[in-house]
Amino acid sequence: MADENQLPIITHRQQVAKSALFGIEQIDLTFSNGEQRQYERMMGSGRGAVMIVPMIDDETLLLVREYCAGTHSYLLGFPKGLIDEGELAEQAANRELQEEIGYGSDKMHQITEMMMAPAFFNAKMTIFLAKNLYSAELEGDEPEPLQVVSWPIKDYKELLQQTDFTEARSIAALMLVRDLLDV
Amino acid sequence: MADENQLPIITHRQQVAKSALFGIEQIDLTFSNGEQRQYERMMGSGRGAVMIVPMIDDETLLLVREYCAGTHSYLLGFPKGLIDEGELAEQAANRELQEEIGYGSDKMHQITEMMMAPAFFNAKMTIFLAKNLYSAELEGDEPEPLQVVSWPIKDYKELLQQTDFTEARSIAALMLVRDLLDV
Repeated sequence: MADENQLPIITHRQQVAKSALFGIEQIDLTFSNGEQRQYERMMGSGRGAVMIVPMIDDETLLLVREYCAGTHSYLLGFPKGLIDEGELAEQAANRELQEEIGYGSDKMHQITEMMMAPAFFNAKMTIFLAKNLYSAELEGDEPEPLQVVSWPIKDYKELLQQTDFTEARSIAALMLVRDLLDV
Repeated sequence: MADENQLPIITHRQQVAKSALFGIEQIDLTFSNGEQRQYERMMGSGRGAVMIVPMIDDETLLLVREYCAGTHSYLLGFPKGLIDEGELAEQAANRELQEEIGYGSDKMHQITEMMMAPAFFNAKMTIFLAKNLYSAELEGDEPEPLQVVSWPIKDYKELLQQTDFTEARSIAALMLVRDLLDV
């Protein structure tokens, strides 16, 4: 078995495809046991992203229903977005909250950081629990207002059963907040 | 506010980049309020994927530590993989288990289905809890044997604190199994 700390060596990297949003890189790897492989991975912006679990009171979550182009469907999840240049994660979280649901938060608590599909991406998302909400709207770049949906956190099992609540990071965030609050 | 059921209309689609593994599509959208946008999304294989939470006994999870090219690091998570053509999700789960940790399962229970980053992907993953494990090895395409790590499920909070246990779908799967088993 390979030493867990001995990373494979990247012997060659090459950009093999590029669009306005995405870059795809091919890398040649030599593992510590001598095995060679060619992998592809997405070249990230490195900007990082945030997701916010907003609670309008001690019992009630707020979610948004938003069009998702990948699945061509409206899906339910927590507000999220990319961190802008020069922003801290917490600032981005408060901005996204105001853009997507029309609230700011006086009490933003970082829950965790998680990675999306690390086999292919270097995409880190910081998850926040937002409490002490106050009305505050910012103009975002959404093509249409997002539908805001409130949900009692004690009914999280029903939320998990919704066919449009399926996004992995939203599920993880819900269950971490449930655990933290011991609902 | 747009009717939640009224999907935007895709007025034009065009492949704008392609590599051996990935295809990127540009789509022109007209939302129900008349707003127009141009988005990019990944063209999926449509094959779907599985993730398996294996328990070697009633108290103990098995995880794998595996090289992830996107982050260029070894990360801890549950066994997973793509569904092969002609396979059912449960068959794929049992195959991946044998390839990655050297066990088959007599008792595979589907926990949920989740989507990864539906804004960009149409990538569904079915999550299984695997019990009644028996020794059975299948040759996979891994460049090196994966390090298998056992973890008492009651210590899930410590697992969440590991800096290499950060993959969103593994976190979601852990917390769903914890909830299901009421640990």
